[in-house]
Amino acid sequence: MQLLAYPFRWLTTLFLVVAFQAHSQNTQAYTSTPSEVMTIHSRLLNEERKVYVHCPKVDSADVNKRFPVVYVMDGDNHFALLAEYVDYLSRPDVLAMPKAIIVGIPNTKRTRDLTPTSSLLNYEGKPDSSSYKGSGGNEKFLQFIEAELIPMIDKNYKTAPYKIFAGHSFGGLSALNCLLTHPDLFDAYIAVSPSLWWDREYVLRMTEEKLKSGSTLDKIFFYSDGNEGGRNSFFHKNLLKLDATIAKKKLKGFDYLYKHYPTETHMTEPIVAYFDALRYIFKDWEKHR
Amino acid sequence: MQLLAYPFRWLTTLFLVVAFQAHSQNTQAYTSTPSEVMTIHSRLLNEERKVYVHCPKVDSADVNKRFPVVYVMDGDNHFALLAEYVDYLSRPDVLAMPKAIIVGIPNTKRTRDLTPTSSLLNYEGKPDSSSYKGSGGNEKFLQFIEAELIPMIDKNYKTAPYKIFAGHSFGGLSALNCLLTHPDLFDAYIAVSPSLWWDREYVLRMTEEKLKSGSTLDKIFFYSDGNEGGRNSFFHKNLLKLDATIAKKKLKGFDYLYKHYPTETHMTEPIVAYFDALRYIFKDWEKHR
Repeated sequence: MQLLAYPFRWLTTLFLVVAFQAHSQNTQAYTSTPSEVMTIHSRLLNEERKVYVHCPKVDSADVNKRFPVVYVMDGDNHFALLAEYVDYLSRPDVLAMPKAIIVGIPNTKRTRDLTPTSSLLNYEGKPDSSSYKGSGGNEKFLQFIEAELIPMIDKNYKTAPYKIFAGHSFGGLSALNCLLTHPDLFDAYIAVSPSLWWDREYVLRMTEEKLKSGSTLDKIFFYSDGNEGGRNSFFHKNLLKLDATIAKKKLKGFDYLYKHYPTETHMTEPIVAYFDALRYIFKDWEKHR
Repeated sequence: MQLLAYPFRWLTTLFLVVAFQAHSQNTQAYTSTPSEVMTIHSRLLNEERKVYVHCPKVDSADVNKRFPVVYVMDGDNHFALLAEYVDYLSRPDVLAMPKAIIVGIPNTKRTRDLTPTSSLLNYEGKPDSSSYKGSGGNEKFLQFIEAELIPMIDKNYKTAPYKIFAGHSFGGLSALNCLLTHPDLFDAYIAVSPSLWWDREYVLRMTEEKLKSGSTLDKIFFYSDGNEGGRNSFFHKNLLKLDATIAKKKLKGFDYLYKHYPTETHMTEPIVAYFDALRYIFKDWEKHR
């Protein structure tokens, strides 16, 4: 009997496990609004570039609606987060901003594309030939965005004219550099912890030079830093200097906000800063709808 | 000639468009770490329940690693955001928290599940029989989580013992009610704008009653409110009352933080509050790794 009973007991156990699983669970893939990856050939950069595109769900009551576009650098780091923010903040029960298209630009050669000058100096001003070789391609990268990327997005998606340019660290430096050198390209600029130390504060010096006191600059600019070495760090001092320079210029129509996040690191800060930046940029949207 | 030329010109134009598109773009689906939807039959609630589950990417160097679990109510509102936060904050270049599993619990009957007592009173204390009929099922919902959901998640995923319970509005009320009535169920509790007004501040009164002065409660508790009617609103006053009650009790081992977000609405606040809550809960994680 014993020899016979064991196999049956084992079979019973097996059956129960299978039955329990069939009864208690049924797993499917979770679906969210999908995003796309487009590959475009850039003649200016002479390379294939991928871009990530996230579109709002189409409202069947208004299929011809057009949407503002948020372009974000370091796409692999921040595209999915911004897509999530915009989808949530534009929900009918939240309504803190309009529905928008997010375009994430992942890097190929980050240092080349996101630095404005050719320099081999590190953040302490000391030569570091290995890390920064090939730097200084930001102008060409901005030309790629202006002449190739934006037209391609406008051609393929239901875009409204309103555009935002967002970046963190070297990407923040590029956003500010774009504001100074191509101010008409975007309507709002977000520079999260811009690497103002680059090339002996080159972009800080350009800010002083390019912004003409009392002139009109009808743009929104959000900039911020985290706790990157404490209150006395070169990072924080540079952001304070940028803020002071902007205040001093008394630009007309320029709507800016500087936020300091003392409890966030260089890498955690973008999460809260991008949220605050969207909230700031669309603060008056509700009234104008 | 004219009659012949037109069709050719049209053909040339068509060809150019096709060629340009083929040359300039190539669209694929964007892939991120996928999430799953599980359907389980709850005997306690006598209904089918869907739950959303997001798991960290498996690290091939440590396939047996186990992960803390964040359970979040109102899954359709906040699951995707929390998944995004946890994936980002646990990246090797961010390291603000460990990798974690997120379980989102979407609603079937929200008012039934997320209110602790049967009441027909609205936030002003006036009867509102249409909205709150069937309220008071929170104890049964918490039993479902304890006896059915958590065992099912523990059985099917590589869970570590550490568990967080997160909710907003009625979900925040449920998180606090769970802390008071099932304190051992989770290690940390997040109550974003809990609806403390429910049933003449029932849960506030329970907080006063259930927390014994000077006793030990080795838990983390994050609670917050936004600008829900301004500084003199019943909402804000209730949160201040909760904060004062907790402070007065001088509990041992209880690690709590109250945050007020004056610039956020009831619906925008969860975005920043869930981020701050995760940062707070894992503030000492880096040292202990």
